[in-house]
Formats: sequence, structure tokens, C-alpha cells
Amino acid sequence: MGAVNTRGAAPKQDRSRATRQRLLESAVTCLAELGWSGSTVTVVAEHAGVSRGAAQHHFPTREDLFTAAVEYVAEERSRALRTLPTPPDTPAAVRQIVALFTGPLFRAALQLWVAASNEPQLGPRVTDLETRIGRETHRMAVELLGADESAPGVRETVQGLLDMARGLGLANLLRDDSARRERVVAQWARIVRDVLGR
Amino acid sequence: MGAVNTRGAAPKQDRSRATRQRLLESAVTCLAELGWSGSTVTVVAEHAGVSRGAAQHHFPTREDLFTAAVEYVAEERSRALRTLPTPPDTPAAVRQIVALFTGPLFRAALQLWVAASNEPQLGPRVTDLETRIGRETHRMAVELLGADESAPGVRETVQGLLDMARGLGLANLLRDDSARRERVVAQWARIVRDVLGR
Repeated sequence: MGAVNTRGAAPKQDRSRATRQRLLESAVTCLAELGWSGSTVTVVAEHAGVSRGAAQHHFPTREDLFTAAVEYVAEERSRALRTLPTPPDTPAAVRQIVALFTGPLFRAALQLWVAASNEPQLGPRVTDLETRIGRETHRMAVELLGADESAPGVRETVQGLLDMARGLGLANLLRDDSARRERVVAQWARIVRDVLGR
Repeated sequence: MGAVNTRGAAPKQDRSRATRQRLLESAVTCLAELGWSGSTVTVVAEHAGVSRGAAQHHFPTREDLFTAAVEYVAEERSRALRTLPTPPDTPAAVRQIVALFTGPLFRAALQLWVAASNEPQLGPRVTDLETRIGRETHRMAVELLGADESAPGVRETVQGLLDMARGLGLANLLRDDSARRERVVAQWARIVRDVLGR
């Protein structure tokens, strides 16, 4: 892009960046609410309040838009992970970890996983990103729990907890599952605390 | 339909039933492999080796076909649950429970859940069925584990285990996750055995 060397260029770039950002946010919202088949470029552009032409300037094809949205979701989930406050105890850490899997970012990611399992253009990209996010989430969970992975079984305990959090997110897809989830999390927080010994 | 009162009527009904069955099985396979957007009546009929006209005789609309397929999946998952052999111990029971969430029936159910979260015509029907199957799965898991739900926390322990199994099924969607899954299940089978005290 080169240096900013004319008056007005920086605001123009800012506007372009803001439009791109709005399109990505709308792509995620549409994906979470309408699924892959309902999320066309036209629908996303309309949701973002951007003309179809402007949307196509940023993302020439639907695959370009949604692979960029995949990366955006990944970055947002990473950011959400990095900004978690230090939990006072194991139950609080378990609640934080589960909460990562019940918001709109997880909903969008879920739609992407299922779309990726059927759409060859999305598949490898989504799988690679999931591998990266999976590692990052695991590392963060170990830190939040203060778990010592050199002890036998601890790594698998944390992994199973993350699998449970993912399953709880899935159970929340069709209805509000929060009351049941709270009871399950309270019990499993006790179990994890006893297993990890803190 | 009335009694079978002419020669040939029974075989004709049998053929009709066999065609219907083939269409439902193909609907599930197409859904698991192609997702909702790829699973049109034409695609399912072709997969079943049935003419489009014959398919429409059985299922006039796409919604008719897939709501019938939803029920078919539910019945097959119930049958799979009822025919599980009695496990010799808690780890074997945990492995049986997890296995219910990693086969093609779970894959098809997952596609349906995600489609139902976006398709108003599928939503309420799938949610009702999931509630029914969820209860049945829980009851069966309690039985397989020999768990005493009158003890505090046991109900939530079993629910969390089922959530974990669902999360493991989801992790298997984009890649073969069986090696990791085996290690997680081995560790959590030990934990569940200790918590349930058997």
C-alpha cells in the first residue's frame, strides 16, 4: 500500500478498513443467525449497510468473504481468550472456559464447521484454523486452571473438559440451555477441582 | 390402508415400504455427507435409485422428506441405545456412551440441528425430537453406568458426561479424532468411575 503521502489518504484508508470490518462482523452475524446457505454476499452487504459493489471490491467471491470471516472469528476468539481475567479458583476457571463456547462467536464457528464439512472450498482452511485455535484454547485452559500437565492424566482431563464445554455449546444451539448448564458446570467444576487437586 | 384382500397387494405394500425406507436412509446419508443445502429431493431420490416422481409420491415436499428423516434418525438412535450390550464396568459404559456420538447417525443429527437453527420449518420439530432423545439417552446412560441418581450430583455428573460425548462427536466432524478421543475417554472413564464409586 506504501506510505500515506497525500492529505485525505489516511481517512480514506480508515474508511475502507472500517467497511471491511463491518462486512466481516456482518458475515459472522449472518452465519450465526442464517447459516451458510442463507449467508450470500448480497445478504451480508445489506446487513452491513454496504453496497453490493463495495462488498465485492473487498471480497470478490463468497469464498473470499467467508474465509476472511473464518480468520476474523479465529482472531476474535483468540482475543477473547487472551483478555480473560485471572480466575480466583478452579470453579471460576471452569465457568470462564465454558462461557467461551456459548456466545455468538461459537455459534458462528459451529455453522462454519458444519458448512466446512460439506463445502470443499471451506474445508481445509477451517480445519487448519480449528487446529490452531484448539491448541491456543487448550494452552489458555491449562493456564486458567493452573494445571500441571507434567502429571499423568492432567492433559486429558483438560481436553475432556474442553470437549464438555463444546458439547454444552452445541446443546445451547436449539434452545436456551443455561439453567441446566449451570447445574452441570457446578458439579463438574467440583470434579475437576478434586482431580487437579487445587 | 385396510386389510390385504387381493393377491399382489401385500408385495406391493412391501415394495412401497422398502422404497420409503430407502429414501429415508438416503436422506440421512445425504444430510450427513452434503449438509442441508446440498440435500434436495432430487439428490436424495437419485442416491436411493428411485425416480423423482416416486420420491414425491412418498414425500410431496422437501420438508416432508426431512421431517420424516428426523423421526427416522430419532428411531434409529433409540434402537441403537436399546440394543447396547450390558457393559462389564464403568470404563466400558463410558466408551459405549461416547461411541453413540461419533457415528453417521450423530453426523446426520448434527446437520439437522444446525439446519433447524436456521430453517423455521424444521426448528420446532427437531427441538421436540431432541428433547425426547435427550431424555432417552440420559435414562440409558444412567442404566449403563449403574448410577444412583438419588445421590447428590450424580444426575449432573451423567449429564456432563453426555455433554462431553457430544463435544467429542463435534470434534470428529472435520477430521478423524479417534486417537485423541481414546486417550480422553480412558482418563475420563477413570474419573467417572471414582466419582460414581463403582
